[in-house]
Order: sequence, then structure tokens, then C-alpha cells
Amino acid sequence: MNDTPLFIPLLLGTNREGRQSEAVAQFLLEKLGYRTDVATELFDVRAFTFSANDYGGALKEKNAPWRDAVRRADGLLIVSPEYNHGYPGTLKAALDLLFDEYKHKAVGIAAVSGGPWGGARMVENLLPVLRELGLVAIHQTLYFPNAGTTFGPRGTPADAGLEKRVGAFLDELVWMARVLKAGRASL
Amino acid sequence: MNDTPLFIPLLLGTNREGRQSEAVAQFLLEKLGYRTDVATELFDVRAFTFSANDYGGALKEKNAPWRDAVRRADGLLIVSPEYNHGYPGTLKAALDLLFDEYKHKAVGIAAVSGGPWGGARMVENLLPVLRELGLVAIHQTLYFPNAGTTFGPRGTPADAGLEKRVGAFLDELVWMARVLKAGRASL
Amino acid sequence: MNDTPLFIPLLLGTNREGRQSEAVAQFLLEKLGYRTDVATELFDVRAFTFSANDYGGALKEKNAPWRDAVRRADGLLIVSPEYNHGYPGTLKAALDLLFDEYKHKAVGIAAVSGGPWGGARMVENLLPVLRELGLVAIHQTLYFPNAGTTFGPRGTPADAGLEKRVGAFLDELVWMARVLKAGRASL
Amino acid sequence: MNDTPLFIPLLLGTNREGRQSEAVAQFLLEKLGYRTDVATELFDVRAFTFSANDYGGALKEKNAPWRDAVRRADGLLIVSPEYNHGYPGTLKAALDLLFDEYKHKAVGIAAVSGGPWGGARMVENLLPVLRELGLVAIHQTLYFPNAGTTFGPRGTPADAGLEKRVGAFLDELVWMARVLKAGRASL
Repeated sequence: MNDTPLFIPLLLGTNREGRQSEAVAQFLLEKLGYRTDVATELFDVRAFTFSANDYGGALKEKNAPWRDAVRRADGLLIVSPEYNHGYPGTLKAALDLLFDEYKHKAVGIAAVSGGPWGGARMVENLLPVLRELGLVAIHQTLYFPNAGTTFGPRGTPADAGLEKRVGAFLDELVWMARVLKAGRASL
Repeated sequence: MNDTPLFIPLLLGTNREGRQSEAVAQFLLEKLGYRTDVATELFDVRAFTFSANDYGGALKEKNAPWRDAVRRADGLLIVSPEYNHGYPGTLKAALDLLFDEYKHKAVGIAAVSGGPWGGARMVENLLPVLRELGLVAIHQTLYFPNAGTTFGPRGTPADAGLEKRVGAFLDELVWMARVLKAGRASL
Repeated sequence: MNDTPLFIPLLLGTNREGRQSEAVAQFLLEKLGYRTDVATELFDVRAFTFSANDYGGALKEKNAPWRDAVRRADGLLIVSPEYNHGYPGTLKAALDLLFDEYKHKAVGIAAVSGGPWGGARMVENLLPVLRELGLVAIHQTLYFPNAGTTFGPRGTPADAGLEKRVGAFLDELVWMARVLKAGRASL
Repeated sequence: MNDTPLFIPLLLGTNREGRQSEAVAQFLLEKLGYRTDVATELFDVRAFTFSANDYGGALKEKNAPWRDAVRRADGLLIVSPEYNHGYPGTLKAALDLLFDEYKHKAVGIAAVSGGPWGGARMVENLLPVLRELGLVAIHQTLYFPNAGTTFGPRGTPADAGLEKRVGAFLDELVWMARVLKAGRASL
């Protein structure tokens, strides 16, 4: 019903050395790349500026690419590990940079964990924040447990069911982004 | 753009004696009654059947009015107190009766508290549940702190700003319900 | 250092037909039975009275065994499934019956899930409630994912590592219960 | 029963310009200063080093004063605002620097908000993280709503009841810190 691709930036939410979320982000970027109904772009929190003793308009200006991307985005895809049952500080700092820009846009979460529980606790921890930002979290989640073994030597998923789960998740994210886009246009 | 009123049942989530949420529910029902774009109906958890040792289809059948209402609903309005920083057990039992019926429908929360924090902690506690049910929680909340003093002797709000907040909240709930209804139709 | 066994009742938090948490509760009761430093007793929410339209002292009186047990308890062991990312309504209703009786006592959570994430989301959802009740949640959790396959035909755990995890968890629960007991005595 | 003062560092969890939490932290430091049973020290996240692309032992070394303080601490007092219903990114980054150092130590939270809800949502959001770190969150909270008006021109609290609430909160924090200290010694 809409020929213009939706714009759904991917936010990689950790700057830690050795982060396993990076491989997940690359995998999802590739999947998004196959879709003609979505355009995307990677935002890596390593590239953000978080000045100590600095907040507000000036800091937003220093992160203008992120601000401009969210402004024109129809949705977001957050790829993030779970640290101590919560979201990484850098992810929160990145999200806290903006406010109105998020309103009535869809968000999907890909949760990454080195352990068996798939980052499920980070997802629950993040929900109140996303809601306050006006983002609409879709009810599906991509869980990546035991992240060190997700991909084989050539980057192919070890779990044959992953491709299908990713497809259903992205379909839902795109659906919600499209529905909310139509809604924003009707206001 | 749509002449059929949206159907947004109100769920009163506590069965406790002396519940202050009842007056809030009646107040909101009255406000919804003035709107031509919404039809509503009160569901009081006191009227629900929660058999011990019973779950699944049989229990759902015993609560057929709730099931049928949610099935045809476009959204929900939950009015609930906060008990010990969480949602009441009866509210959760009522929500847990159904699943697919909630999918892609809007939900707004009116939080009631006898203390100063407006039930804010109940709202946060409820978010993961609502999301798992496929409901889309709007980002606005109606907080009713110090609930014993919300309404004067004739039922008029003691706080002159309340009417306006209720109006903005219901506008948002109706907007999201309408947007998701259009989205469901396009699937 | 203390010859009197600690009293740590086990609360089974669901009344659903076919509940898998029952086998977990029985398994943990057996493990507690081997310990000379703990006395326990099973409290099954199926045996609780939750009158509609009834709250306060009268309802507490109807659940006098639970009230009396918590009053003299040094800690609690909660065994509960995860329903829609939250705690069961019956568990919350049982917890909400009391307040002062919980203060400065230890609590451990055994989380049960039919799926892969071990009930982890229920645990996080329950934390604010436990804290408000004055209970001290230990930092270890017993997760029972894929609960239908936890025990073999003779009730022996399918996972050889389970016994060790249970031992460490109970050691921590007992340690915290003992430490808080000494603290309460020093007030 | 113990003549050595407990060591309870205060962590100020935001680096934002114009932070209102700073006045709250100074007020609480002053209150702690009157107590002979506690020694304290201010840790301001502005003084922390959070290198991009850097994690683990090296980063911990760069924040050696924090590491050493937590290592010998009996408890923590966290003073933090609520940003978008969650904890500040810098607070989480500071907490994530350590792990074993926190185990079995008490923590109290003073929540600061420019709005009416007192930072209550930040507190709930932080609980799973504190538990995973092995910290024991006391069940009392100091809420500072409408933070811009908390203190009069000479720094005296506008609310006459605040002194009493602070006293009860610190008594509880000190009690829990002392109880856990005795427990750690008995391991």
C-alpha cells in the first residue's frame, strides 16, 4: 500500500570491547538489506558523544546524525546485551538524548546474552523507558542466548530456526511501523 | 474518518471492600459517555469467576461476557489500584483469562493510590504483562494520587486540571485504538 | 552457631490445573527435608480463601495458618510459574494478605516455565513487590525452564547439575535467613 | 555493639548540567556527617572514567578509588534522578564497573525528580540490577519530588517532615549494613 520504504535505523547499544552484540547487529543489518520495504542504517553507540558535564541542546547537536535519523525514522531496531539484568548505560545515554523525535514510532528489541536466558531481563527492564519516550514496543522479541555460539565460523546461524524467527520479528516490526506511520499522517 | 464508534471496555481491577478505584471508574465511564466516538461497558472483576483448580477453556467459558467484549474491542481502559508496588491479583487473573483476543489493541491505564505517588509503580509493574498479551500501552497515564480526596462531596474533581488531563488521555487512547484498528484491517 | 532450625515455609503460587510448579515444589520440599538446619511446610494457594468483596482482618483470619506461619518464619521459598511475563494473580493475592509479618525476612524464588527462559521475567516482575513487603530477596534464583522435561519418570532430575544448583541456592537462602534473624534479635 | 563506624559511600548518579540531585546529595552527606556510627565519602559520576571501547580490568583500574571504596564498604547510598522512567546511563555505567565487591552489602536509594512522582519509577527500574550485583536494597526509599523546591534559599528543607524521614531511612540503611556485616563475618 506504500511504495516508499520505511526507515528503521538499527541502534547497537554497547561499546564494550569484545561485544557479541556486534555480530548480531551485522546479521540483522544483512537481513534488513534483503527487504525492499525497509531502509536502514547502523548507529553504533561508540560513535556517539557523551560529554561529561554537558546535557541538552548542545549535546544533541553533537549527535546530530542520530537526531536526524530518529526524526525521519518510522521505527527503531535496538540490538543490546544485558548487563547485570539491566540495559547498558551507553544505550540509555543514547536514548536519553532525544524525546519528541521518538513519538508514535515502532521499536523492536534484539536481546543478546552470553548466558542461557537470552537477555530477557534486559528487555523487561527497558520497557518503561521505551514507553515514556513514546515508542511502541512490539510484542515480539529476538532473544540471542549463549551469544558466543550463535554463529558458525562463516557467520551462518547455528540454529536453523533463527532465520524464520527473524523473518516473523521483522514482519511485525515493519507492520507496526507502517501502521503508526499511517496514524501519524492522519493526525 | 470512521463513523462507527470504537469499543473500549473499562476493566475495574480490584474486588477489595472500600476500593477507591470504583469512583475513578465511574468518573471515567461518565467521561467516555460524553464521547460519540467511543462505546464502552464496565467490567468489574467482582463479577468474574475464578474457580480454584480450574483453568483454560472451561474458565474462559464461565467468563464469556469478558471474552466476547475483548474479542470485539478496539482497546481497553484499565482502572486499578497499586497494592504493594504491584498490580492486584484479581486484575492479573482477569487478564490471564485471554490471549489472542488482545492482540494489536490499545490499552490505557488509570492508576489509583491512597498515597502520594499515584500508583506509578503499579503501572511500571504491569507493562511487561500488557506487552506479552499483544496490547499496546499508550504512553500517557492517568495518575490518581491521594485517591480519598480526588472527588468532592458531589463527585466533582477537587483538582481543576483533572478534566483536561482526562481529555488528553482519552484522545490518545482513542487515537491509538483507531490507528491499530485500521492496521488490523489491513493485515 | 544456632541449634534451632530455621523455619522457611514454601509457598506454591499457582492453582492452575496441570501446574508444573507442583513437581518442583515437591522436589524442593524433599531437598529441604534432608537439611537439619531448616524446618519447612508447604502452603498451596489452592488451600487459601480469597473471598470476593472481602479484604482486611476478616480475610486474614480465614487464612490464619498462612498468617501464623509467616509470623514465625525466618524466610520464605516461593515456587511459581510465569504467566504472561508476570506473577500469577493467586500468588499476588496470597502475598497481599499480610504485611508486617514479612519484615526483615529472607525470600528465595524458584521460577518455573514451560518455555526456554526459565521464568526469568516473573522473577524481575516480582522484585518490587517483595521489597515493599519488607522481604529480602536473595540474589540467586532457581530457574526451571522447559518444566515438562525437568524430571524423569521416577522424579529424578534430567539435568545432573540441578542438585548442585539447588544446594547452593538453599545455602544462600539459609544464610540470609540466619543473618536477618540475628539482626531482628538485635533490634 | 560495634564501635567501628560503618563505611557507606554516597554515589551521585548523574553528570548532567544543572542536576538537582547534587543538592540532595550534599544534604544527605551533611546528615551522615552528624552520625558517629557511619563514615562516608562522596563519589560523583562526573569524576569517573568511562572510556569508549574499553571494558574490564583496565577500566576498573582507572576507577580505582571507587573500586577500593566499594571493596571496604558496608553499604551504599545512591542518589539519583529519574530519566525517562529509568536510571541514568552514567549511574548504570558506574555500577557495572564492579561485581564481587558489592556482594552482601546494603544499599539505600534517594530518588530525585523534577515532577510529582518522586523518582519512584527509577527506583523500581533499578531493583533488578541491584539484586544481581548482590546488593541488598532496603525497603525504605527517600523520594524527592518537585526537586527544584526541596530546599529553601538557605538550603533548609521546605518540608518539615523531611528530617524525620531521612532519619528513619538512614537508621534502616545502617541497621541493614550492620546486620550484613555481621553476616559476612560469620561466613
